[in-house]
Amino acid sequence: MDWRHSWPVAMHEDSGDIDRPDKPGFFSDYTAGLCSRKVGECCIDFSVAVVLPAGGSGERTGLATPKQFCTFLNRPLISYTIQAFERVPWIKSIVVVVAKESMALMMDIVQRFQHRKIRVVQGGSTRHRSIFSGIHALSESENGMAPLKPKVVIIHDAVRPFVEEDFLCKIAMAAKEQGAAGAIRPLVSTVIASTSEGYLDHSLERGKYRASEMPQGFLYDIIYQAYQRCNESDFEFGTECLHLALQYCGTNAKLIEGPAALWKVTYKRDLAAAESIIKESLSRLACVITGGSAQATTLANALHKTLGALDTQLDVIPDIRHPSNHWNFIQISVGCHSISQVKAVVRYLEEMNQALLYPVVVIWVLLDNSDDSSVSERTVEPAVIMELASAAKIQNLLLYGIQLHHSKEADCWERSVGRVTEIISALIRDRSTALVGQLLQA
Amino acid sequence: MDWRHSWPVAMHEDSGDIDRPDKPGFFSDYTAGLCSRKVGECCIDFSVAVVLPAGGSGERTGLATPKQFCTFLNRPLISYTIQAFERVPWIKSIVVVVAKESMALMMDIVQRFQHRKIRVVQGGSTRHRSIFSGIHALSESENGMAPLKPKVVIIHDAVRPFVEEDFLCKIAMAAKEQGAAGAIRPLVSTVIASTSEGYLDHSLERGKYRASEMPQGFLYDIIYQAYQRCNESDFEFGTECLHLALQYCGTNAKLIEGPAALWKVTYKRDLAAAESIIKESLSRLACVITGGSAQATTLANALHKTLGALDTQLDVIPDIRHPSNHWNFIQISVGCHSISQVKAVVRYLEEMNQALLYPVVVIWVLLDNSDDSSVSERTVEPAVIMELASAAKIQNLLLYGIQLHHSKEADCWERSVGRVTEIISALIRDRSTALVGQLLQA
Repeated sequence: MDWRHSWPVAMHEDSGDIDRPDKPGFFSDYTAGLCSRKVGECCIDFSVAVVLPAGGSGERTGLATPKQFCTFLNRPLISYTIQAFERVPWIKSIVVVVAKESMALMMDIVQRFQHRKIRVVQGGSTRHRSIFSGIHALSESENGMAPLKPKVVIIHDAVRPFVEEDFLCKIAMAAKEQGAAGAIRPLVSTVIASTSEGYLDHSLERGKYRASEMPQGFLYDIIYQAYQRCNESDFEFGTECLHLALQYCGTNAKLIEGPAALWKVTYKRDLAAAESIIKESLSRLACVITGGSAQATTLANALHKTLGALDTQLDVIPDIRHPSNHWNFIQISVGCHSISQVKAVVRYLEEMNQALLYPVVVIWVLLDNSDDSSVSERTVEPAVIMELASAAKIQNLLLYGIQLHHSKEADCWERSVGRVTEIISALIRDRSTALVGQLLQA
Repeated sequence: MDWRHSWPVAMHEDSGDIDRPDKPGFFSDYTAGLCSRKVGECCIDFSVAVVLPAGGSGERTGLATPKQFCTFLNRPLISYTIQAFERVPWIKSIVVVVAKESMALMMDIVQRFQHRKIRVVQGGSTRHRSIFSGIHALSESENGMAPLKPKVVIIHDAVRPFVEEDFLCKIAMAAKEQGAAGAIRPLVSTVIASTSEGYLDHSLERGKYRASEMPQGFLYDIIYQAYQRCNESDFEFGTECLHLALQYCGTNAKLIEGPAALWKVTYKRDLAAAESIIKESLSRLACVITGGSAQATTLANALHKTLGALDTQLDVIPDIRHPSNHWNFIQISVGCHSISQVKAVVRYLEEMNQALLYPVVVIWVLLDNSDDSSVSERTVEPAVIMELASAAKIQNLLLYGIQLHHSKEADCWERSVGRVTEIISALIRDRSTALVGQLLQA
């Protein structure tokens, strides 16, 4: 069986290392509006700001595109990371630090995806210089307003998009109490020291060491002071903020074990992994619109079962309204295959600007009543769907059609429902832009 | 632009850490028959065997399915790893060590995917015990034959499927000369030591340390001796074979920097990444069959350009033969849309057992000559393709149809070619089983 469905709980993304099957599951929701945790569950009663260093420039790393600006599902990686902080109510301000040559691009991203709470500042030539620029910006007044200087500042990587509110809460709390706090993970590989000639010198005892990850949190005054006191070589070659707080302020950071999903997008394969996590998350909930018809409702209820078995929960509603937390819509049309129904759905979603952050899938299921059971019988012009789909695609709405013959034979009907389920599930999971406007046969 | 195409060379999978854009590209071929290196390029003139510990059992790790047995593209992860060694001519024997409860499953996998050079042995209760079982098996005679005891033994992980011949060659050579050799990678995160109370004690200087990865190679006699001398606690808690060789035989292992693709499949996201690497690799080459028709050849040449721009090289041939290193076939039929042509292709691929290791995509492009330019015009029964596709699917052949109208208008024709290119590219990359048998409109 395919790993998507066979993968055991203990290996779910957030289960940490595989020996610890006690952690929350992989299927936490990383998609806005699907946030798996109740807002306000964590009570932070002090001011918290975020600094997001995204200064890596093509020049410096030799890359054509810095990876934080590489896109999947029509959106650059950094926008996903910003969104993760934006949806946390107690985070009041996010400072994104980018290289000079990326300022315009970053401004455009903020505007295009309507990010709020954001301030974009220009970074320095190294990671530490960029972080300090961001921290410094928090103590400056912006267009006449009083400075935002927060109690606690959280520092994160632009290339770790999957950070959740509950963990940010732990970091912020610990930072306030201890002065500094950072995420850690168990080591995946043994760490070894090599001789100058490239031979094994010794290997470290895994249990005693941890990988230092992001996010990290600090009392604002402590990290500010640490950066003011540290020297050129720290700014040039340093990698670890926690180390600076220890060395220059004597603050021993509290280390908190983070979920596996905090991993850093480093290689091309990591972008494929990130895309699959988002797609998985988007495909977990769909909304089927019956138009009140009895036949459509029968099919909807059947799909509720079959799609549920494939981990897609189905909300059945007579007509579309408040689709705030849906990314997949299935319009069932019966008999006379009036395209007006699906046109209305598309128009509504366009007006709601529903597909601003993620491509929204709209599947038009044409339930055909005629007695001629020939699957080839086409009661709608493919060209009509193709046209509608091409227009919708520009709005990030992916429209597909499925033609389904309503058979009176139980077996035959069950097979058709099976096929339609398989196709819907694939369309929702793949979100293929190349196949929009196709009228598929179930 | 999507990361699949925008990703710069320096971030290609094998480029190692992003500061070192000098390594070979991501697009090495991990698919059998597509091996990117000339066979025999590396001259190993001594006997080499491989031990593949795959003992991780559901019981021990608390998993329902040990991850080495999770499948993608219809094949368990461990089969990909075995294949990586199997295709290396100078590796004579591969010992797979599995838990008692997985023996039958492993035997079935070896038979189903026709793996050669394989011996399956039962492992112990820990990783080191399992590795020793495998090494020990190499000195035992099997069904009357003389023992295979090799000069050098390579130890690898069942969950690192992307290891290539040239790197195995380096490891084997160094192992023969130095007694032991192991793959290393730069540390992705800073490594820190924590106090017993969970506070930062100190952080290690990244440059001085490396992550120890697999494969590792040893002179057979050295690793055998090391295991004979080591104690219970080594067998129980040890993680590092190189450490045993050092401690019990005084052998300082040679450390060799390996490619990023050696990473260990640990989390669910890693399986998504592995699947995307394989799909990427499979989609790099396709074979279009024109049947000798002039019109088909014109289309084929157009596709050669457009698909080439999407990193899919197209071989244009009049009729199918020796498809040994193709995983994607496009049959262009003109005018009278005789299904016999695509039937012949499917039959041929079935006879060649072409889809044993990977799902093979067969796309039937129906080039429609009529003057009626209505895209809805259907000159073939969808039911006929669906039926053929359902039968082919059982053989791991994924058949799709695309109907294309041949317009005399240049612009219109160009648009059609653009659409057909987009659809073919998507079908080849996604390899969706849910959409087989569909007749798509270009």
